[in-house]
Amino acid sequence: MLPGIGVFGTGDIVRALVPFLRAKGFRVEAVWGRTLEAAENVATELNIPFHTNKVDDVLLRKDVDLVFIICQPDLHAQIAVKALGIGKHVLCDRPAGLCQLEVLKMVHAAQYYPSLISVISHGLRFLPAFVHMKRQIETGYVGMVNVCDVRVHCGSMIGNQFDWMCSHLMGGGILTMVGSHIIDIVSFVTGQRANRVHGMMRTFTKSTEKINGIRWIDSDDFCSFQMILDGGACVTATLNSHMSGGFIQEVVVCGSQGRLVVHGANLYGQNHTTEKEELLHEGPDDVAHLTNKNNSARINSLLPQPYLQGLFRLVGALKEAFATGDGEHGWLKEPVSSAATFEDGQYVQAVIDAIKLSSASRQWEQVTVANDENELNPLMTRLNLPNINMSSLDALSQAPTNRPPPHRKVTSSESHLPWSFATKH
Amino acid sequence: MLPGIGVFGTGDIVRALVPFLRAKGFRVEAVWGRTLEAAENVATELNIPFHTNKVDDVLLRKDVDLVFIICQPDLHAQIAVKALGIGKHVLCDRPAGLCQLEVLKMVHAAQYYPSLISVISHGLRFLPAFVHMKRQIETGYVGMVNVCDVRVHCGSMIGNQFDWMCSHLMGGGILTMVGSHIIDIVSFVTGQRANRVHGMMRTFTKSTEKINGIRWIDSDDFCSFQMILDGGACVTATLNSHMSGGFIQEVVVCGSQGRLVVHGANLYGQNHTTEKEELLHEGPDDVAHLTNKNNSARINSLLPQPYLQGLFRLVGALKEAFATGDGEHGWLKEPVSSAATFEDGQYVQAVIDAIKLSSASRQWEQVTVANDENELNPLMTRLNLPNINMSSLDALSQAPTNRPPPHRKVTSSESHLPWSFATKH
Repeated sequence: MLPGIGVFGTGDIVRALVPFLRAKGFRVEAVWGRTLEAAENVATELNIPFHTNKVDDVLLRKDVDLVFIICQPDLHAQIAVKALGIGKHVLCDRPAGLCQLEVLKMVHAAQYYPSLISVISHGLRFLPAFVHMKRQIETGYVGMVNVCDVRVHCGSMIGNQFDWMCSHLMGGGILTMVGSHIIDIVSFVTGQRANRVHGMMRTFTKSTEKINGIRWIDSDDFCSFQMILDGGACVTATLNSHMSGGFIQEVVVCGSQGRLVVHGANLYGQNHTTEKEELLHEGPDDVAHLTNKNNSARINSLLPQPYLQGLFRLVGALKEAFATGDGEHGWLKEPVSSAATFEDGQYVQAVIDAIKLSSASRQWEQVTVANDENELNPLMTRLNLPNINMSSLDALSQAPTNRPPPHRKVTSSESHLPWSFATKH
Repeated sequence: MLPGIGVFGTGDIVRALVPFLRAKGFRVEAVWGRTLEAAENVATELNIPFHTNKVDDVLLRKDVDLVFIICQPDLHAQIAVKALGIGKHVLCDRPAGLCQLEVLKMVHAAQYYPSLISVISHGLRFLPAFVHMKRQIETGYVGMVNVCDVRVHCGSMIGNQFDWMCSHLMGGGILTMVGSHIIDIVSFVTGQRANRVHGMMRTFTKSTEKINGIRWIDSDDFCSFQMILDGGACVTATLNSHMSGGFIQEVVVCGSQGRLVVHGANLYGQNHTTEKEELLHEGPDDVAHLTNKNNSARINSLLPQPYLQGLFRLVGALKEAFATGDGEHGWLKEPVSSAATFEDGQYVQAVIDAIKLSSASRQWEQVTVANDENELNPLMTRLNLPNINMSSLDALSQAPTNRPPPHRKVTSSESHLPWSFATKH
């Protein structure tokens, strides 16, 4: 039997996801919102029987066996760790957490409860274009992988009011929201992981017509990053949210013998055996018919088609895993075997942390995936994340070449971050 | 009357250029080649009355008033400086020279003889798509420029035999050949220059079926670089010569109010006053009818359409400048007023030098445009150009994070570079 689902989050993605879950045969039993009002609104709109603003009230429900954590990233780790401890399967949205230390806690929880499913929502892994790309690379279509060039151009990710998406300390920004998918999919299709990274992040739009009060936007709306993979390949990625009204995602992989390109949902290729570029896989134009019609425009801007389509396919894989129910723990591993694990999420987070550090230090930074929580200093990783803004970088660019970045004080507002698990809910 | 022309170089571009020069009414009087045989072949093929392998024999000819320097970059500076000294107008191919010191000598010569035309072949400035893009940016179409994203994907630039294109010490590589155009056009359309740069260069293809003997390819076939412009804009560029059979050039400029995109020869735009992307200028598909039909495939791979088309338009502007002949010095400044000067070439070279340095130091590097030749140490700039190859970078990537790049010895082969002006010809 399919597990009952508890959903954490009240955003537009939840509005798209819940009808799809039901279409797949899942029961959505409970929804959690940051405020009771937000939870009630979504519960009424989507006809969900139970709503609350207390995390435990969802996690302790007997009819909830699988939780979808689709809320702000600063809450992911605490909800995921608790959920696994209480014995619930977990699908967690990207980025897995705010910094590697948080995700490492999730990894340890997942390792402690191997009978529970724990996956990150890196749905691109389930898109046929990328599945085929991975297979072609494995069979030697491009030879040895040398270069990956990734471009994502999209419109602004900032909504009509100030929320976590505006704050890089709460996990907002194009690097965490889009870059996390890119870091994961590059590693998935090439089978290589980043050794060293370099990044340049910027916040060009610090205020909008609607957001111009006391609080300003400080999450990155532009990011260019480079990675050296452990097999020697070079990756360069440009994430640009200044292309209003459009969404373009292109992943190019060039090797010694040929190249593969995923453009949107299609896969193209050319190698030494082909005379010109061939269409290797044609993806569907959209899966919008499954989403709530009224919200589709908003959903598209928040979760572009490839990510939405990938999330839906991941849900389909979860259904398959549970449907037969004859695995060792009541589910089959095979359908979700290619999903991103929490370990994958930790790697992605380690790369994100290194890119942020590089953007501040203006040097290449090593990617270090830690095994022990003591290796990671929470002050270094969480509070001291470089506060990316133009003014501080402008100041840097006036400085002599090799001057280290100026010491940054933790401001009083930052020292009141929602950090402790106990006091939060 | 139009000036007689002397051409330095015997490559495929010369084969495309000479017929076009004649179609414009220029007389091509003399051709220089590195060997007498190469010069003779081109002279016979193109019906040029005089050929030689001695630089002075072209420069001293009374019927030559304008020289086109389209040979290997390590000879540009010495020929250009001599030509101006003898009183000839100069069009010099990109990159202007091998390093900033060389180009500064050219700049000083050009400043000393202001009555002579001295331009670099950055022809993109004359393509209508970029002319319109510059105008639209000046009139505020995109608001304040925030982001430029440039992609050039092309096939291999290496020919059938070892030549200067295979050697980064002789000016070969995708950064000098393609990147120089990109650095120039970004500065042209935005009106901003780079303060700081970061680069990652690689040579993935070190040998080919034809080039696999004692000498290996060490010029870069992949380069990703980032620039911070003096107005605060961020530029990221990806130059990739691993896309066989294709040429894609896309220049995206995003600002606070909208964006402009030059794709191939077309200009597209969208801003807050437009509902969707509009075609602002449609360029011609090709200008191939003016080139030698038999060579067009080879020419296209060596000099892609936008660069060839731009070079031809620059020649057209030169014709206009000379045609009326009623300027102060027998030519009008206006038609070539937007051409890249030697000063522009020096700026481009300074950026290239800094990108090469950054690729080795793995840090951001300041762009310094020098006024005095004594500021530039020839050993630092010319001989000590970072020898970009995977093995040295692999070694670097094993090193601890902040270790400076290892000291590099000048090898004996490098100390015999064709440096001195006097002994070379």
